[in-house]
Amino acid sequence: MVASNIEGTKQTKLQVIETIEEMRKLLDRNDRKGKTVGFVPTMGYLHEGHLSLVQYAREENDLVVMSIFVNPAQFGPNEDYATYPRDKERDLQLAASAGVDIVFIPSVDEMYPHESGIRILPGEQKSVLCGAKRPGHFDGVLKVILKLFNIVDPDRSYFGMKDAQQLSIIESFVHDFNLRTKIVRVPIVREEDGLAKSSRNVKLSGVERKEAPAIYKALQKGAKYIEQGKHPEEAIQMVKEMICSETTGEIDYVEILSFPDLQPIEEHSKEIIIACAVKFEKARLIDNIIMSTKEGKLNVSNNDE
Amino acid sequence: MVASNIEGTKQTKLQVIETIEEMRKLLDRNDRKGKTVGFVPTMGYLHEGHLSLVQYAREENDLVVMSIFVNPAQFGPNEDYATYPRDKERDLQLAASAGVDIVFIPSVDEMYPHESGIRILPGEQKSVLCGAKRPGHFDGVLKVILKLFNIVDPDRSYFGMKDAQQLSIIESFVHDFNLRTKIVRVPIVREEDGLAKSSRNVKLSGVERKEAPAIYKALQKGAKYIEQGKHPEEAIQMVKEMICSETTGEIDYVEILSFPDLQPIEEHSKEIIIACAVKFEKARLIDNIIMSTKEGKLNVSNNDE
Repeated sequence: MVASNIEGTKQTKLQVIETIEEMRKLLDRNDRKGKTVGFVPTMGYLHEGHLSLVQYAREENDLVVMSIFVNPAQFGPNEDYATYPRDKERDLQLAASAGVDIVFIPSVDEMYPHESGIRILPGEQKSVLCGAKRPGHFDGVLKVILKLFNIVDPDRSYFGMKDAQQLSIIESFVHDFNLRTKIVRVPIVREEDGLAKSSRNVKLSGVERKEAPAIYKALQKGAKYIEQGKHPEEAIQMVKEMICSETTGEIDYVEILSFPDLQPIEEHSKEIIIACAVKFEKARLIDNIIMSTKEGKLNVSNNDE
Repeated sequence: MVASNIEGTKQTKLQVIETIEEMRKLLDRNDRKGKTVGFVPTMGYLHEGHLSLVQYAREENDLVVMSIFVNPAQFGPNEDYATYPRDKERDLQLAASAGVDIVFIPSVDEMYPHESGIRILPGEQKSVLCGAKRPGHFDGVLKVILKLFNIVDPDRSYFGMKDAQQLSIIESFVHDFNLRTKIVRVPIVREEDGLAKSSRNVKLSGVERKEAPAIYKALQKGAKYIEQGKHPEEAIQMVKEMICSETTGEIDYVEILSFPDLQPIEEHSKEIIIACAVKFEKARLIDNIIMSTKEGKLNVSNNDE
């Protein structure tokens, strides 16, 4: 397996590592000689969104490390851990050709041997969006991410903005606990028809796949509503109605919040997120638009008063 | 301020650092050139117990870093955060003469600026001993320790065995989350009369100070009971009675558990801890004995059966 790195660098063989001990040895800071490490954590079944993370990492670092681990800790009991799509060989080929140097692909036993039950719980940021709908999800995300950060010890870590709440919580975690990696936000990659790339898209039926781009179109129209000074509640209502009428999916949530703190928006909010989750038969999809707001343009009048 | 390092090494000036950013720069892994860092976290008001930690760190590492930070997050609302003894100048002198290279002494604002409310909660190990009596205490310990580990990035970190539950929880944290420091256990240092060294000993009245060595004597007698094959409940009862009759302190707990997992002891427990906390008027003291047990010697028959 040969990775074609960025122009000018020599081709390197992709290293596939399965144990924490080997990763530790391979990435020992004392042997790095100042080489920087960019880290792309994934759950595999790679798509162009992941490869975009690799591209960003490739441009800014000497070494690119990707982890592939479907993390059971972040799935609820009725969620799709068992059926989450997996394809190791395809992933390794894609990683190699995207320029990844090292893939860390541990087993569940390797990541979670006997444990003492110490948990990391997100703060208020978990009480909205997916956090409100997937209890324990972000506990599991923080658990695996602290482990992975400690195993890889990256200089920079790359996260896609599709998982905006995850990004926001991980940024807070890094800030609050002085974690030794910089978090880099990478824009959402979309299909030509606007559907956000997701490993779960393969679980859509033919009909659902045709309907799904309506999600992004609805969010775009919602963003326009906000730009026009319409009230967020009105925008939310419109987005919900549009998704309901144009897809067979069931709306899990549509919310408009300040970003990255995920609080109710206020007049002075500088950045806001319009985010939604839609449940199709076998796949729950999320998408969002993050937009800067012009001073004073935000309509946050309370309709009840 | 000049530190007299271990024999043969040149005298170095103690560096006193107050900000996270300066610590980061000073201890950047890329500039360490393979030099190892030993870390001694303290709440200051140093005594021979702390200096013993420094001595261990000094022997095993190129650089010794001590933090001095009375961590508000680990004190309950009715505990002694405000009156915890502090003496910065004395601490810096002691640190220097013990051979510390760098003291990190941040303000509370430096350590805890605006935060998102992410919390780290210990598992079952918190439900006994001090954890049962000081709700939230070990959350605060894990919070500060993850921050300090990330700021200092030590190769080895030194903890005294007087705080046995703290040690046990931190060892689990390091294990479960793959933290990048080795934890070194350092034996309890005692006064000549057996009282465990503690910053809080200065808060004892003259009478209390004379009574306090009875705590360790009672624990020693408890250990002898176990060695003799007496039932742990009998040993606990004896320790309680002895402390009650020989001191004016109020018993907070006396417990015998397996170590380091802090579970009820079983026939096959290899190491056990006899631990107690005693409340005097202005100081709550803890102490313990950790002992290896001979195969089959442990009497764990259930008296109720």
